[in-house]
Amino acid sequence: MSDAVSRAQSYALENEARFVEDLRKFLQIPSIATQGTGMQECATWLVQHLNDIGIKAWLEPTAGYPVVCGEVPGATDRWVVVYGHYDVQPPEPLEEWIHPPFAAVLEGDRIYARGAVDDKGNLFCAVKAVESYLAAGERPPVGVKFFIEGEEEIGSPNLASFADAHRDWLKADGLILQDGLVAHDGRTELNLGMKGLLYLELRARTHDRDLHSGKAPIVENAGWRLVHALASLQGPDGRVRVPGFYDGVLPPSEDDLELLRTYGPSEEVVKAEAGIDRFPERLKGRDPLVALYFEPVMTICGVVSGYAGPGQKTVVPSTATAKIDIRLVPGQDPGRLIQAIRAHLDREGFTDVELVPLGAGQPASRTNPRTPVARAMHAAIRTEFGKDPIVKPSVESSGPGCVFSDVLGLPWALTRFGPAGSTLHAPNEFFAISHYRRGISTIVRFLDEFARALEGQ
Amino acid sequence: MSDAVSRAQSYALENEARFVEDLRKFLQIPSIATQGTGMQECATWLVQHLNDIGIKAWLEPTAGYPVVCGEVPGATDRWVVVYGHYDVQPPEPLEEWIHPPFAAVLEGDRIYARGAVDDKGNLFCAVKAVESYLAAGERPPVGVKFFIEGEEEIGSPNLASFADAHRDWLKADGLILQDGLVAHDGRTELNLGMKGLLYLELRARTHDRDLHSGKAPIVENAGWRLVHALASLQGPDGRVRVPGFYDGVLPPSEDDLELLRTYGPSEEVVKAEAGIDRFPERLKGRDPLVALYFEPVMTICGVVSGYAGPGQKTVVPSTATAKIDIRLVPGQDPGRLIQAIRAHLDREGFTDVELVPLGAGQPASRTNPRTPVARAMHAAIRTEFGKDPIVKPSVESSGPGCVFSDVLGLPWALTRFGPAGSTLHAPNEFFAISHYRRGISTIVRFLDEFARALEGQ
Repeated sequence: MSDAVSRAQSYALENEARFVEDLRKFLQIPSIATQGTGMQECATWLVQHLNDIGIKAWLEPTAGYPVVCGEVPGATDRWVVVYGHYDVQPPEPLEEWIHPPFAAVLEGDRIYARGAVDDKGNLFCAVKAVESYLAAGERPPVGVKFFIEGEEEIGSPNLASFADAHRDWLKADGLILQDGLVAHDGRTELNLGMKGLLYLELRARTHDRDLHSGKAPIVENAGWRLVHALASLQGPDGRVRVPGFYDGVLPPSEDDLELLRTYGPSEEVVKAEAGIDRFPERLKGRDPLVALYFEPVMTICGVVSGYAGPGQKTVVPSTATAKIDIRLVPGQDPGRLIQAIRAHLDREGFTDVELVPLGAGQPASRTNPRTPVARAMHAAIRTEFGKDPIVKPSVESSGPGCVFSDVLGLPWALTRFGPAGSTLHAPNEFFAISHYRRGISTIVRFLDEFARALEGQ
Repeated sequence: MSDAVSRAQSYALENEARFVEDLRKFLQIPSIATQGTGMQECATWLVQHLNDIGIKAWLEPTAGYPVVCGEVPGATDRWVVVYGHYDVQPPEPLEEWIHPPFAAVLEGDRIYARGAVDDKGNLFCAVKAVESYLAAGERPPVGVKFFIEGEEEIGSPNLASFADAHRDWLKADGLILQDGLVAHDGRTELNLGMKGLLYLELRARTHDRDLHSGKAPIVENAGWRLVHALASLQGPDGRVRVPGFYDGVLPPSEDDLELLRTYGPSEEVVKAEAGIDRFPERLKGRDPLVALYFEPVMTICGVVSGYAGPGQKTVVPSTATAKIDIRLVPGQDPGRLIQAIRAHLDREGFTDVELVPLGAGQPASRTNPRTPVARAMHAAIRTEFGKDPIVKPSVESSGPGCVFSDVLGLPWALTRFGPAGSTLHAPNEFFAISHYRRGISTIVRFLDEFARALEGQ
């Protein structure tokens, strides 16, 4: 361990009370992007705070809320980008909070606030790690660029274009982000990939209004049209039937599989987290963990057609709509899939069924687990947590990873410092002082590990 | 034409004003079975009225509202049963009525009232036809039994058991019923069959609550389960895939087809009534009229599962429900079909999808068009309307015809005297004096034609 790490960690421990107060100030600004409150105030405060602690910071405009940028050079000419977001979910329902959501009340180890975990507490672990180096009279082992957006909770609509427009400034050797909660056994996760997402509506419309079902033999039924269109997309075996759907899909590497087997969750844990006793019949003979993390999946999220009230109503529905999400894996392009699905529906005789993408979709992202950023974060976690992380070479959910890996060309690593048992996106979200402490020390160490891993390349 | 017919028709014309007043009194009693108002009052009034005009009448109890029975012997020892109902639909929404729904306001030719067409006006054509014979000093050519229930608008829950318990009293040579409207070209319909109805729910339930769709690869999806179960029941060609579904189906006879071609509606009329420009692709090479009137059909009436609001919600639905009606034709038994569908779902791997019949279902009914009751009604209509009826050997909709044909063994004939343009089950229902007049004269003539057709057997 370098002296700089030791000095920075000592500074953090000695100044913990102030670090908590700084986080509380950040949490007390109700920066709710979807409601438009407190956004400018929060961004301005954050720029000021970064400058106050020695990180050169400024606002960059977007078509929506501004991005907070910060930059501090390191002891080497290598760089890491820290991504985070200063916007939070709406706090409603307010009556379920035991403390006001923007009071940031301290209660024992806990700090209750909307955004405490997602993402202000997690983000501040990195901010305070850099501050600890600087205040201890050290440069961080690598230069750090802060890339803090204000639109994550509304789907990051301007993230990709911002990244594209600022790719020169965002040149670096890797990117880290912190969000979410550690596991109940105290381990944190190290995530190196995420799925993409394509959200579609299928709409059948056969008449202006529902008809008496006596007419059924001689009229189209929007309900049947939709059911058959849906059944043409995917079989009961869970296999998508659209030609080309699996073309180019990147399977997990040997490294991915070995990491998953060595450090990933067990099948029992995965079942418990999903609330199921056993895996579906269709997974027989397949590896459920590989399916969960590495395979694309098409999901019916909702269907509505005709009459759904109590008792009998004898109608032929005139409209039917299904909502579908597709979790993509690397190699699948949302735009190409939209075309493939449309062509498939046409070939199968469903030219009358409308296909409406809700948004352009988001590709998947996966980081090679041998890159310095992944190895350095693994090592830092092992040391600071005293155990290996739960490594997920890719996760089941989706996010903007493709902006980092594909737009910016940065390998990335996501980890989680929030206390197990906290909520996310629900009342009584809380961070914890002990988790803040460990998060800061982990990022302090990561910056050092990262510099050394880059040296060893 | 016999003298009796002539005298009865003359009596009816001379006493039309009183006949209208009698109908208005009947219409002024708000006998709404579903709301429980005016039912006993109406039944009692009707018994009294029948007795007053020379028809021996009485109430028979059921598990629900009583049946009004009436009986008058004829000039021969042959009998016809007149079926009708004294209950009406609820009048709501009241604010859309131009006259109070139970004021039975006369306006020109029209009598506005809830139940004016369905079924009090139509029924009274038969009541007043019999009265006309009696008041003219004649016996009706055949004996007439009135079988007037009070639960038609709530699905006739006690009709079959009542018929079964009173099969001796209900012995006759045929049964007639009048309901609904004449066509816009002034022709009335002669219906000799109706489809049966089986209403089912299919329910998939995979979890206690909706799950995050990231879990989709390793959990069941109630939406997909339901879609695949539904798709297993019927193909895009409209053909039901359940083995045994078409077993025993009675095809139309040569007589049925000839009647339909000679007197039935044209394809153009049928399309116009359904509000369609062309028949669905799946009917190519088939006869749409045969499909409409003589073939069973399985209809999705509604589907609901998961999220159906605006925008994206990424969930795996835990429940999915479909409402299905099956219009049956003669030869199909609802109970046997329920078993066949359950067995099919099990064989196809959908043991987890629940099949819930809403009620026991109602078989179809079809009357041979060569029976005296059918021939007599056709002849009476031809004379009194000056043109042939629109003959439908069977209709697209469902009703209790099976009680008449199967429980009682009575061939039956349904015709319609309501004025085209009136509503049914909606505000501003009206009957018309001119239609009342023609309806009475038609039934007067039918009774004579029926006696002669029975003689000629």
